[in-house]
Amino acid sequence: MTIGEMMSTKLSYFNFPFWRAEPSRIALHIAGIDWTDERPNREMFMAMKQSGTLPFGQLPVLEIQGVSYGQSNAIARYCGRLANLYPTDALQALRVDELMSAPEDLMIYLGATMRETDPERKLELRRAFAQERLTPWLVHIENRLLLNQESDFAVGDSMTMADLTLWRVIRWLNDGILDGVPKGIADGHLRLQRLVCAVEDHEGVQSWQNRETN
Amino acid sequence: MTIGEMMSTKLSYFNFPFWRAEPSRIALHIAGIDWTDERPNREMFMAMKQSGTLPFGQLPVLEIQGVSYGQSNAIARYCGRLANLYPTDALQALRVDELMSAPEDLMIYLGATMRETDPERKLELRRAFAQERLTPWLVHIENRLLLNQESDFAVGDSMTMADLTLWRVIRWLNDGILDGVPKGIADGHLRLQRLVCAVEDHEGVQSWQNRETN
Repeated sequence: MTIGEMMSTKLSYFNFPFWRAEPSRIALHIAGIDWTDERPNREMFMAMKQSGTLPFGQLPVLEIQGVSYGQSNAIARYCGRLANLYPTDALQALRVDELMSAPEDLMIYLGATMRETDPERKLELRRAFAQERLTPWLVHIENRLLLNQESDFAVGDSMTMADLTLWRVIRWLNDGILDGVPKGIADGHLRLQRLVCAVEDHEGVQSWQNRETN
Repeated sequence: MTIGEMMSTKLSYFNFPFWRAEPSRIALHIAGIDWTDERPNREMFMAMKQSGTLPFGQLPVLEIQGVSYGQSNAIARYCGRLANLYPTDALQALRVDELMSAPEDLMIYLGATMRETDPERKLELRRAFAQERLTPWLVHIENRLLLNQESDFAVGDSMTMADLTLWRVIRWLNDGILDGVPKGIADGHLRLQRLVCAVEDHEGVQSWQNRETN
């Protein structure tokens, strides 16, 4: 390992803005540190997996000074600390943490629909997911957000990792990306929509989205 | 709401030592604060759910000074902070967080087996889960633990929420509680077994297990 590798920070995840890594990428960008944005394709990922170097056999992975760390929310919390997007107050952190954890509740049900290979059955499972799981989940999230009147963000008066996470989850579920999950399913939740707009208007997020990529 | 309720801390979860709440109960016990250990039965839970007061429609719920918080890992992190079972150092916290998050990877696959109503199909799904998901997961956990030579615990030289979480997950998966998951499936992972023993020998855990219950 070279001295450069020893000192480096690298985040590896597939080339799409999914909630499991995009909030961490943006936090690293906002933190203003020097880091590598690695985006393996399927083939590279399989090679990484085979080599046994992925901490939990999956992505994202954050490498800090030659040591690898896994688990999206653990990584997000660390990157959030670097960027002052994670509260130091324990009760504020609890509020941020519960919203960062909430998408896992969806994944428990959505996972089975992802693995279903029969297209008709998949669509059926997705429709049931949207109606029975996603719809009440969105009501819970909306109600949690309504507890905060201080700003358009989820917790306190500035953006946190909870906002970046919810924003990416909602854009994924609401934009008609998943067959069987109706486009606009979250549109009626106005507090959540305010959060989405506030994140997209945030200077750091805009700077990330307008960055030069090569 | 009375002044007593305003000041109180209450943790509500079903009456079994599952990893989603038992680590938090133990942390509150170790923290030595005054708290209520509420254990609703199925009927009480359904009434709570109907009343719309559960933050995400599920348990555990932590109530602090009349405000409710949800999500097991968020609650665990907060209780861990109260008991000094969660590191203040960001890199140590990252290590603890990744191990606290890791069980969610299993739940994504286990969830579908829980909801399966056909007993034969359930057993088949469980066997596939044990072989294809749990077995490699245990190897990853064992390898993560081997990175720490400082003690029998997962991170640093003392017990953290990562240990309490892994201990409860492993006792649940290894004790033959889930049909189709072979008893002793984690026995070959000696580092993990050392962790389990260290947790069970811990003074605070013993004090919790030997407490007077009424």
